[in-house]
Amino acid sequence: MSTVTFEPSGKTVVVENGTDVLAAARAAGLEFDSPCGGKGTCGNCGVRVVAGDVVDESRGVLTHAAVAHGYVLACRARVTDTPVTIYLPETFELEGARILADDETYLVRPELLLKDWQYDPIVVKWLVHVAPAETLDGFSDLDRLIRAMRREWGNQEIVCSFGVVRELPETLRAEEGVVTVTVVRDGERFSVIRCEPGNQTTRLYAIAVDVGTTTVAVQLINLATRKILATRSAYNDQIKCGLDVISRINYAGRPGGLKELRNRVRETINRLVAEACRSNDIAPREVSSAVVSGNTTMNHLLLGITPEYLRLAPYTPAALEIPSLTAREVGIEINRDARVYFSPNSGSYVGGDITAGLLCTELSANTDDIQLFMDIGTNAEVVVGNRDFLMSCACSAGPAFEGGGIHCGMRAALGAIEKVDVDPATGRAAYSTIGGVPPRGICGTGVIECLANLLMTGWIDPAGKLDRSGRSPAIEYEGRRARYVIATAEESATGEAIFVSELDFENVIRAKAAIYSACALLLQQIGIGFEDLTRIYIAGGFGRFLDLEKAMTIGLVPDFPRDRFHFIGNASLMGSYQVVISQDYRQDQMKLARRMTYIDLSVMPGYMDEYTAALFLPHTNQDRFPTIKERIMASNKDDGWRPQTRFEGVQTRS
Amino acid sequence: MSTVTFEPSGKTVVVENGTDVLAAARAAGLEFDSPCGGKGTCGNCGVRVVAGDVVDESRGVLTHAAVAHGYVLACRARVTDTPVTIYLPETFELEGARILADDETYLVRPELLLKDWQYDPIVVKWLVHVAPAETLDGFSDLDRLIRAMRREWGNQEIVCSFGVVRELPETLRAEEGVVTVTVVRDGERFSVIRCEPGNQTTRLYAIAVDVGTTTVAVQLINLATRKILATRSAYNDQIKCGLDVISRINYAGRPGGLKELRNRVRETINRLVAEACRSNDIAPREVSSAVVSGNTTMNHLLLGITPEYLRLAPYTPAALEIPSLTAREVGIEINRDARVYFSPNSGSYVGGDITAGLLCTELSANTDDIQLFMDIGTNAEVVVGNRDFLMSCACSAGPAFEGGGIHCGMRAALGAIEKVDVDPATGRAAYSTIGGVPPRGICGTGVIECLANLLMTGWIDPAGKLDRSGRSPAIEYEGRRARYVIATAEESATGEAIFVSELDFENVIRAKAAIYSACALLLQQIGIGFEDLTRIYIAGGFGRFLDLEKAMTIGLVPDFPRDRFHFIGNASLMGSYQVVISQDYRQDQMKLARRMTYIDLSVMPGYMDEYTAALFLPHTNQDRFPTIKERIMASNKDDGWRPQTRFEGVQTRS
Repeated sequence: MSTVTFEPSGKTVVVENGTDVLAAARAAGLEFDSPCGGKGTCGNCGVRVVAGDVVDESRGVLTHAAVAHGYVLACRARVTDTPVTIYLPETFELEGARILADDETYLVRPELLLKDWQYDPIVVKWLVHVAPAETLDGFSDLDRLIRAMRREWGNQEIVCSFGVVRELPETLRAEEGVVTVTVVRDGERFSVIRCEPGNQTTRLYAIAVDVGTTTVAVQLINLATRKILATRSAYNDQIKCGLDVISRINYAGRPGGLKELRNRVRETINRLVAEACRSNDIAPREVSSAVVSGNTTMNHLLLGITPEYLRLAPYTPAALEIPSLTAREVGIEINRDARVYFSPNSGSYVGGDITAGLLCTELSANTDDIQLFMDIGTNAEVVVGNRDFLMSCACSAGPAFEGGGIHCGMRAALGAIEKVDVDPATGRAAYSTIGGVPPRGICGTGVIECLANLLMTGWIDPAGKLDRSGRSPAIEYEGRRARYVIATAEESATGEAIFVSELDFENVIRAKAAIYSACALLLQQIGIGFEDLTRIYIAGGFGRFLDLEKAMTIGLVPDFPRDRFHFIGNASLMGSYQVVISQDYRQDQMKLARRMTYIDLSVMPGYMDEYTAALFLPHTNQDRFPTIKERIMASNKDDGWRPQTRFEGVQTRS
Repeated sequence: MSTVTFEPSGKTVVVENGTDVLAAARAAGLEFDSPCGGKGTCGNCGVRVVAGDVVDESRGVLTHAAVAHGYVLACRARVTDTPVTIYLPETFELEGARILADDETYLVRPELLLKDWQYDPIVVKWLVHVAPAETLDGFSDLDRLIRAMRREWGNQEIVCSFGVVRELPETLRAEEGVVTVTVVRDGERFSVIRCEPGNQTTRLYAIAVDVGTTTVAVQLINLATRKILATRSAYNDQIKCGLDVISRINYAGRPGGLKELRNRVRETINRLVAEACRSNDIAPREVSSAVVSGNTTMNHLLLGITPEYLRLAPYTPAALEIPSLTAREVGIEINRDARVYFSPNSGSYVGGDITAGLLCTELSANTDDIQLFMDIGTNAEVVVGNRDFLMSCACSAGPAFEGGGIHCGMRAALGAIEKVDVDPATGRAAYSTIGGVPPRGICGTGVIECLANLLMTGWIDPAGKLDRSGRSPAIEYEGRRARYVIATAEESATGEAIFVSELDFENVIRAKAAIYSACALLLQQIGIGFEDLTRIYIAGGFGRFLDLEKAMTIGLVPDFPRDRFHFIGNASLMGSYQVVISQDYRQDQMKLARRMTYIDLSVMPGYMDEYTAALFLPHTNQDRFPTIKERIMASNKDDGWRPQTRFEGVQTRS
């Protein structure tokens, strides 16, 4: 018998083992439609397993992401003899479901994922029954293992890693020849990287790693159930060696610099992997594959390859498609023979994070519609295209949007100010923090909110200068220095006031100018405008929290029909997950990487003009932001404030 | 101009660069026949390059071994601008040439080597011209390398090891794109394991390693010239953990025992590799392939695999065909990505040393003639067969023939007594040592000589008991203990007398009995006798020095027409050399390993009887050794001495 608890209703029912969840729900008095009659084809009865486990036979109907987050079809999932808790929402709605994954919030948009994905991970586990040895039969332990595998999976080339061979005598004899092999399928070649006694097929784990210049994120995945077990992120320890890619490259040129950078990022990754494993009672050596997605420079540094020639003309990377490596070679502390697959880089400035991120979009889908993808990070990349072409460019935005290089900046973690309202009359801030605890700092979206609201209420001008009239107690100034205080020393958890200085705002404005002008120039190069785009994807670790209206207000994204924007969060990490889970995605990604054409903006005429023009809020040419312009005009009508600008339609503040 | 010196005549001549050696020799007044007129087809003008180098275009005519030892055809070898020394014997004779290679002497019998061998080593070096990078051309350094290689060698799958990729930016730029790649060709797949700036194609080195239970031998080979640069051997450091295979297996079962054994043999190998490299000014990292041949237990121990199940029924090895490994995995201190190929084991008791050794024989040649191969080592193996069948057996002989387990025993190295004559009248020894220096001990062949001559002169009886009449000052005895003193304390380099005790002789008798009875039983199993064999190959580290007549006298080998015996020395090492140099041999070896059928003597009826009967000198049934019997009778006619025996034809000593 099995105890099944349903949430949020709290109803509990005891049913026989093997009962399907649909029948259990009905026994508990919970009703929902099952148009296909329990055949597992309509997808109407999707529910989420919160605790415990079920035998899941769901197929095809549920999206990839739904499965990843624990969804099963109630009619195709059977309970076992362990208690299970099922989340059964009143109105089941998966589209845009907000998935809370540990310390980060990720928005997953399953409709963006490849529809006909197939569960086909890089690494699989198989149960093998090895026949016992007979006296001097001429077969070694290895021969017996290979024969047993061939009987089951055909006459493949089977190669066992040294570690497997070394332990084989004990492994084969521990459970009378019943072993579980972990296999990397590389075309017609099977590589056995692990062999365990007994049936361990349900314990197959992988990690997806997003290596950003500022932030590193790691996801632990149960490949057997496709569930994401944990997500962990932290600042890249390399930050201490420079805030952006160029300063890291310079640092790598010092004696011992490259080695230090390599060790720092490895330590960051290994710390996150260890935490994610620990929280799930999984030994790191049980993790048998990894997909790493990072920009080209980050990939070089993680591998200890000099990035020098990425910086010097003709800007040549050592490798775009990194050969498949072992965890031991890369220095990631999981199973030493685990395969580490690097998302392929497309060019020197468009890396594996972008080819992973594009897997969460329809940019190269079979359509004439032109779409745009922007990944907002320390290094920002923009890709535009459709089935016929894919063009990309990159720019350095700096770490401001991730809280880096901002005096009171921090990551979007517990205690970070993420919402800031500004009182039009007094200029005072009303704020809220992640987790509702006393503030410890301000994250990137908090700074953007703050800047947008200060602009909208007239306490900052389009050039990013704070009001020095003394009318607001929140604005402190002395000579050329001014700052906007959000939380006082008494309110803050650190005992010091939390503020944003004009210098901080300048960093943000430079960052948004770089990104906006990159988009504009790339489109100009192709000969189209923003209005020709059917969709804009915005990716980045902070994507989930970003308020589109605020991003538009400061001119980070174009003023554009709101429904064409899609925030896809940390697309690099989500794309890595997809590659872990299905070789279909891996092939798509390789095609994407090879198809993209890189445009070097810095050598384009008009580059500096476009950038300089974007150094205002929202833009020097406010006609590019008609709805924002209108709202600024409206909000300032009453008190006569006008944003300062050299251009017609907006007048200098008196 | 080039200076050419000829040995042993010492004549020197200065000739133009590009002159062939034949012309140079004639210019120096040295004549020899060139029946083919200098076309390189008759092979008559083989000479050996002692120092310096020539441009060698010799093809086909010279045997594999001849090339390995520096022989070239004088008519096809051209001098360059560096001085060169040529050895030009008065009567050029390669058959049975005694090649002095450093601290060991190896007899190479080139007629035994595969006739149509092809130079096709596991690892090759190629010169590659890589095109320069162009601005954002979309090609990484790795792409450029692979494109350049494909242009030259076809559209192969090319995989670069991580170390190569990591160093690639600097390597490609050091000599303007000219690099030398070290490539492992594995079917259709090319693995680049090293990439160096500039043209380094002549610096391609390999090692052949024979891992014996008692002795380890290493050969350093220049793959570019196929020459053996150095041979080094030493006792296997594992000796301290047990003298034979069974005691090693027991030792491996102790806590930490396996690890210790692994480290000990690795240290032995690495010490020999380092010495061989040092003596040739070669950095160990320039060695890019290795072939290791050892018995099945030695292979397990070197790889750190438990040998436990080799000892317990049903006697199953972990692996017979060891997967291709890297030097780093094996722990051999050469290039870390170097390929280490293990000669395949045929069974639990017939290992890679035997499959390597058989490459030096014609056992599986296309003939009905039945031949026998015996490898005399601590573990002795016997193989008999022809093109239709191959059967093998093994026995433990103990380390006596390598000087192990003998009180004053030592390896066949400088100072070892290798010849012992016995004065019939006084029983006193007349001895000679390797190198003619004062004796430090006695090697295996010395003990055999000593025993044979003591028997022939009547100072020891067929049961191995020394004469206790007090007539010989060389025989010291006290109760059950007796010993034969060969060198006095004054003569010896150690300050202590060098003797052989009855206990030592017993070890030798047990060893020879095990080997002889194994041969006899194996033949009996097939239903033939010694007389049906057309050839007997005797392999073993001591093979070169062994006097056939003495071996027959003590009954180690059958009494048999002398011209059917072939001593082939350390065949395991020579076979390893062949595998290093040509993949043809590698394939042959795999076929040999798979074809052999193992016979477990210990379960055969009559095994103990056969063994016990062989515990006499030469044998209990002296009719099996008719010529020896006759000689013993003849030599003892004068003084009335008769070997003690229970059998007819020989009477008990009075």
